[in-house]
Amino acid sequence: MAQDQTLNTTPMKAKHDADARKKFLGKTIEHIDITKNPGIVPVVEAMGHMAFSSRDLQRAADIYDRMLKDKECGVILTLAGSLISAGLKKVIVDMIRSNMVDAIVSTGANIVDQDFFEALGFRHYVASDELKSGLFDGELREHAIDRIYDTLISEDELRICDEVTGKIFDGMESGAYSSREFLREFGRYLDENGGPKCADSIVYEAFKRDVPIFCPAFSDCSAGFGLVAIQAARGDSPKPTWDGGKDFYELTQLKIKNKETGLLMIGGGVPKNFTQDIVVAAEVLGHDAPMHKYAIQITVADVRDGALSSSTLKEASSWGKVDTVFEQMVYSEATLAMPLIVGYAYHKGSWKARTGKKWSQVLEQQPAGVA
Amino acid sequence: MAQDQTLNTTPMKAKHDADARKKFLGKTIEHIDITKNPGIVPVVEAMGHMAFSSRDLQRAADIYDRMLKDKECGVILTLAGSLISAGLKKVIVDMIRSNMVDAIVSTGANIVDQDFFEALGFRHYVASDELKSGLFDGELREHAIDRIYDTLISEDELRICDEVTGKIFDGMESGAYSSREFLREFGRYLDENGGPKCADSIVYEAFKRDVPIFCPAFSDCSAGFGLVAIQAARGDSPKPTWDGGKDFYELTQLKIKNKETGLLMIGGGVPKNFTQDIVVAAEVLGHDAPMHKYAIQITVADVRDGALSSSTLKEASSWGKVDTVFEQMVYSEATLAMPLIVGYAYHKGSWKARTGKKWSQVLEQQPAGVA
Amino acid sequence: MAQDQTLNTTPMKAKHDADARKKFLGKTIEHIDITKNPGIVPVVEAMGHMAFSSRDLQRAADIYDRMLKDKECGVILTLAGSLISAGLKKVIVDMIRSNMVDAIVSTGANIVDQDFFEALGFRHYVASDELKSGLFDGELREHAIDRIYDTLISEDELRICDEVTGKIFDGMESGAYSSREFLREFGRYLDENGGPKCADSIVYEAFKRDVPIFCPAFSDCSAGFGLVAIQAARGDSPKPTWDGGKDFYELTQLKIKNKETGLLMIGGGVPKNFTQDIVVAAEVLGHDAPMHKYAIQITVADVRDGALSSSTLKEASSWGKVDTVFEQMVYSEATLAMPLIVGYAYHKGSWKARTGKKWSQVLEQQPAGVA
Amino acid sequence: MAQDQTLNTTPMKAKHDADARKKFLGKTIEHIDITKNPGIVPVVEAMGHMAFSSRDLQRAADIYDRMLKDKECGVILTLAGSLISAGLKKVIVDMIRSNMVDAIVSTGANIVDQDFFEALGFRHYVASDELKSGLFDGELREHAIDRIYDTLISEDELRICDEVTGKIFDGMESGAYSSREFLREFGRYLDENGGPKCADSIVYEAFKRDVPIFCPAFSDCSAGFGLVAIQAARGDSPKPTWDGGKDFYELTQLKIKNKETGLLMIGGGVPKNFTQDIVVAAEVLGHDAPMHKYAIQITVADVRDGALSSSTLKEASSWGKVDTVFEQMVYSEATLAMPLIVGYAYHKGSWKARTGKKWSQVLEQQPAGVA
Repeated sequence: MAQDQTLNTTPMKAKHDADARKKFLGKTIEHIDITKNPGIVPVVEAMGHMAFSSRDLQRAADIYDRMLKDKECGVILTLAGSLISAGLKKVIVDMIRSNMVDAIVSTGANIVDQDFFEALGFRHYVASDELKSGLFDGELREHAIDRIYDTLISEDELRICDEVTGKIFDGMESGAYSSREFLREFGRYLDENGGPKCADSIVYEAFKRDVPIFCPAFSDCSAGFGLVAIQAARGDSPKPTWDGGKDFYELTQLKIKNKETGLLMIGGGVPKNFTQDIVVAAEVLGHDAPMHKYAIQITVADVRDGALSSSTLKEASSWGKVDTVFEQMVYSEATLAMPLIVGYAYHKGSWKARTGKKWSQVLEQQPAGVA
Repeated sequence: MAQDQTLNTTPMKAKHDADARKKFLGKTIEHIDITKNPGIVPVVEAMGHMAFSSRDLQRAADIYDRMLKDKECGVILTLAGSLISAGLKKVIVDMIRSNMVDAIVSTGANIVDQDFFEALGFRHYVASDELKSGLFDGELREHAIDRIYDTLISEDELRICDEVTGKIFDGMESGAYSSREFLREFGRYLDENGGPKCADSIVYEAFKRDVPIFCPAFSDCSAGFGLVAIQAARGDSPKPTWDGGKDFYELTQLKIKNKETGLLMIGGGVPKNFTQDIVVAAEVLGHDAPMHKYAIQITVADVRDGALSSSTLKEASSWGKVDTVFEQMVYSEATLAMPLIVGYAYHKGSWKARTGKKWSQVLEQQPAGVA
Repeated sequence: MAQDQTLNTTPMKAKHDADARKKFLGKTIEHIDITKNPGIVPVVEAMGHMAFSSRDLQRAADIYDRMLKDKECGVILTLAGSLISAGLKKVIVDMIRSNMVDAIVSTGANIVDQDFFEALGFRHYVASDELKSGLFDGELREHAIDRIYDTLISEDELRICDEVTGKIFDGMESGAYSSREFLREFGRYLDENGGPKCADSIVYEAFKRDVPIFCPAFSDCSAGFGLVAIQAARGDSPKPTWDGGKDFYELTQLKIKNKETGLLMIGGGVPKNFTQDIVVAAEVLGHDAPMHKYAIQITVADVRDGALSSSTLKEASSWGKVDTVFEQMVYSEATLAMPLIVGYAYHKGSWKARTGKKWSQVLEQQPAGVA
Repeated sequence: MAQDQTLNTTPMKAKHDADARKKFLGKTIEHIDITKNPGIVPVVEAMGHMAFSSRDLQRAADIYDRMLKDKECGVILTLAGSLISAGLKKVIVDMIRSNMVDAIVSTGANIVDQDFFEALGFRHYVASDELKSGLFDGELREHAIDRIYDTLISEDELRICDEVTGKIFDGMESGAYSSREFLREFGRYLDENGGPKCADSIVYEAFKRDVPIFCPAFSDCSAGFGLVAIQAARGDSPKPTWDGGKDFYELTQLKIKNKETGLLMIGGGVPKNFTQDIVVAAEVLGHDAPMHKYAIQITVADVRDGALSSSTLKEASSWGKVDTVFEQMVYSEATLAMPLIVGYAYHKGSWKARTGKKWSQVLEQQPAGVA
């Protein structure tokens, strides 16, 4: 089909009415800067003597600080939920800059549709309160504006992001890549094109500091449109493809090479399960890998429905994935809990004595498999 | 590394004490059979005149019935959460047998770790109430028993399932496959080995009736261990790989070829987002595909945290993915709501006048891409 | 103040535009009739072999059936949340008619604003979906229409209900009354005025069958306006007053006289706590009262915030209030779970061999305190 | 009955084993001091530019600051959930000391079982993590230790608190009292007995600064045992009784005398509904009282079950109770959100220009009713 080979990057039925769009896309989301807020420390410390979520939050913050003090420990951050659009980007970038994280496993949305999207110069916008009702979503659609609960995005800009991913893929050699390898190319693209067009970028910072990023459901994001485009354009001819099995193999290799690990999980979903599973995968490959030694999860999910996002860390321990001495669930929406937990650990400063693991180099120096 | 090439399929540190295991693995989960319960219809009808979740549930059941009456409409079922282990397998198998579903998009856990696992002759077990506390998860681990909230699985049996997936991959020609193509081979494996070793199997029934199954995070399940094994064994040599971009391309082709679609979503997660996104993917490929005409989601997730699982169907409409005339969220745990909704539609019988779309054949007759 | 003595029973600023009101108040809520649905039994039985909420629900239904088989056991139903407006009235009336409940402890809203209100001839109405957004609440206010999530009430009619409560109080002798004594007068009022002006009424049926009803926060409902009116009219002169301590004393007397008790709790709140506390109150009065032997709670509340509504029945057992052999939490919205649980017990029929305790007579035959 | 007249204030069946009790009751809950944390302000300000709960929290904090700037506005704090046992007592005491609140409407548990209890010299204790499972509640009961999720209380000490309330009632003249009048006597009792036996007390501070406290379900708390005791001892003879209608009348009088009001609601329940209702009660008494001008609610409850605790402030506006210009729901557990919201307003300092309303004096100067 002819259409399949020239991509359509403009929402077909939308009015592209600049005035109307300005009405909606006026006020930008600004990312919180925890490095400027040492006042977080005494608040979190006081919470440790209270009850309910505040006590849990302090314990989680303390466990994260322990992870950073434990020099053997590799720290893996997992991300699910719309975190970057919600203003948490700089928290994560500061974690990378301060050697507070060694690998990231995320939904594609956070990394591509939101972080890489902002690195291309685009922004997220504050939705006015009445839009949350859903009653104006038809009008938003007419103006090609996408809504994430109380936040707005220009679909036109998102289509450009989709398109850039396709161009990057198109410029790569044929072969099977992990999402990590693709995302490294995204970082390189930014680096070769004058750096990110915004103050901070996870994809860029991780590229510069050799922090690998995995998106185990990589086709389920803006990059998926790029992958579809290249499938459509090249059919069965040689092309770069996303080899999801390689993702799992690579992350497992990190566990094998750096036995002690700690998890800081924001939300649940595929990133949480995928990362917990590498303990079992290492064992399947014949390595006696210990369970994740430290584990924190921030979530609003409810344990009682049996979904993975809400399964407790104790439950993960029955599967041999997570140790239970230093584990803590924090039941809170992430925009409240994450700045407090990471801010606490940042200002406690244990990361200053820590060296980054530079796991991207580890993976590149030793190619996959039999070698 | 030598270890990487002979797989270790036994949990290393577990005691394999048959008596202790019998204590835990005594009582099996039994799957509910909605076909025997016509009494569901008047209960759901009465709920339509009440308030809160009961009214929502009746409206969702009615929308599902409308989908089945609308002969143009292709019905896509998405699955997230531990549904098969929870006793919902037969509901889904009966949907396949009755032409009530044309494609399934699921987490890998439901399809491989749970349905295919049962087809290999294994079972899920009822956990006693005190195990839910998490305080006995260390003991469970010692006996290689995995816990999903109030349900237990033998890890030894799960490792056999992992191993079988690896063997199936190993017997396939080298090349890039979608998860759908792999799962079709899982169905063929069952067919060539005497059928499922249990009364009902989604993988098998879907194979026999040409209902494609997609797992867009396919490495995040029991099959992922098979994928890792083959990565370890063959390294950069030719091998079957999972091409996640092909999943997205194939599901989008179905939307292009069968414009009218309805979604029955159990839980959210990647299956929900991935399936909603094919509307945009079709447009990116230059096709004027309409939004999903019908959409139902059963979930316990809370809209206020911005996670995808909980984003409303109205919100999806701002993205141009879901139409809002026939959409309904049902806030309920799935084991309560799914039997009532599907049972209602089953006994209303609109499916009797419906023909299955046989979408597996559609995808196989026309190869991907430019041809 | 002059105003304080002539009551104003019309919402002051509302437009009383009949046409506009008809637009909103068109479709009535209809109460589900579980007596006509024996098909509930096999569905609930099948749920007992599944996982998550379905298994919990079946166990709760079984415990309720056990309570009814246990002839020593007095059954107390507690009600919180908008249950009558949601269509659950007939379920409760059928429980009273079938000797399936011996006392009711409720929020005032369920009993006065909703049940007594319907007995006066008024109805609840289905709100259209967009009203749930809250964006039209200003318009509703202009038309004196009150909203409960997806349900509407005429404020004019509710003010009549307020006024009737005031008239009933005004006709009573001066003195301190329990809410039970007041509510018995409400039943008598209906009886002497031609019975309820609708098919079923909890207040009326409980009056006829000697089932006492307590509202431990009695001033927090439509009756509260009647109490305020009489305070305003009579000041420090003799008048009927609501003596809330007498409520607690009376309910405790029932526990003392009928030691074995079971609780069916819909929602939490004051009714739950108040009823659990009578075990301790009996002990404070020197009686060796056993804990509540059976306890079921249906709730959507989350245990992790420490609120009373969500505190588990195990936690109540640390307080010596609830035994833990036959206790079950069911995490579900009540309109889904209550018809299934009560419908199951109704059609199992154990109530047929049971005699009502006629606790209203017990309380009236022996006056409070020292006599 | 003889027993009814000598109270039994010791849990009958408990072992009173000091060593075992020490094991559980070792580590006390400490109340957070927001006055020492000016660092809260920039964190909350940054949250205002993010999304989801953080943005809502900042808006709520800003609305509370507006209330304090608006000198006409009377500020009413409502409390539900176990807040004092959770470490929030000092936050509330500092609000009273700083003229940041004019009246409190609460569950009895917060005021009597927890604040007055601590003022008698008793403490709340940190429960170890495994106790949260509920599996040790039988053991706790044997040692007369009560559990609130992750917090422990000595039942022996709580019985002393029950007994003191009975003694205070016994020393009062016969007559009908509002809960506010009773709680004022509790404050006087502390004042006349050397002040509270702990650093801070809500009951005591409110007594000293003429801030009235209402418990609209007053018999549903430790004081209820005192009320039952006096019912048992005096039967139909004259005695002090709790007149719940008077509570509603008095709070309504405050609304009539101080038309502009703002609500800071922690949790929902009876305190929320009761306080919202005074707008209607004032109108019923013939006064044209405006809706509550400002309204904030912190809750984890879910709007979709129709319970009062979760009903939105917009919904309350359909009832004519709450204005919608300055209203904000914050979906968070209170121990996280309340220190941030009150801490923000405290350090913004608008309260410094504000005078306390001394509403206790207002109520005492003008007796109820016709005068």
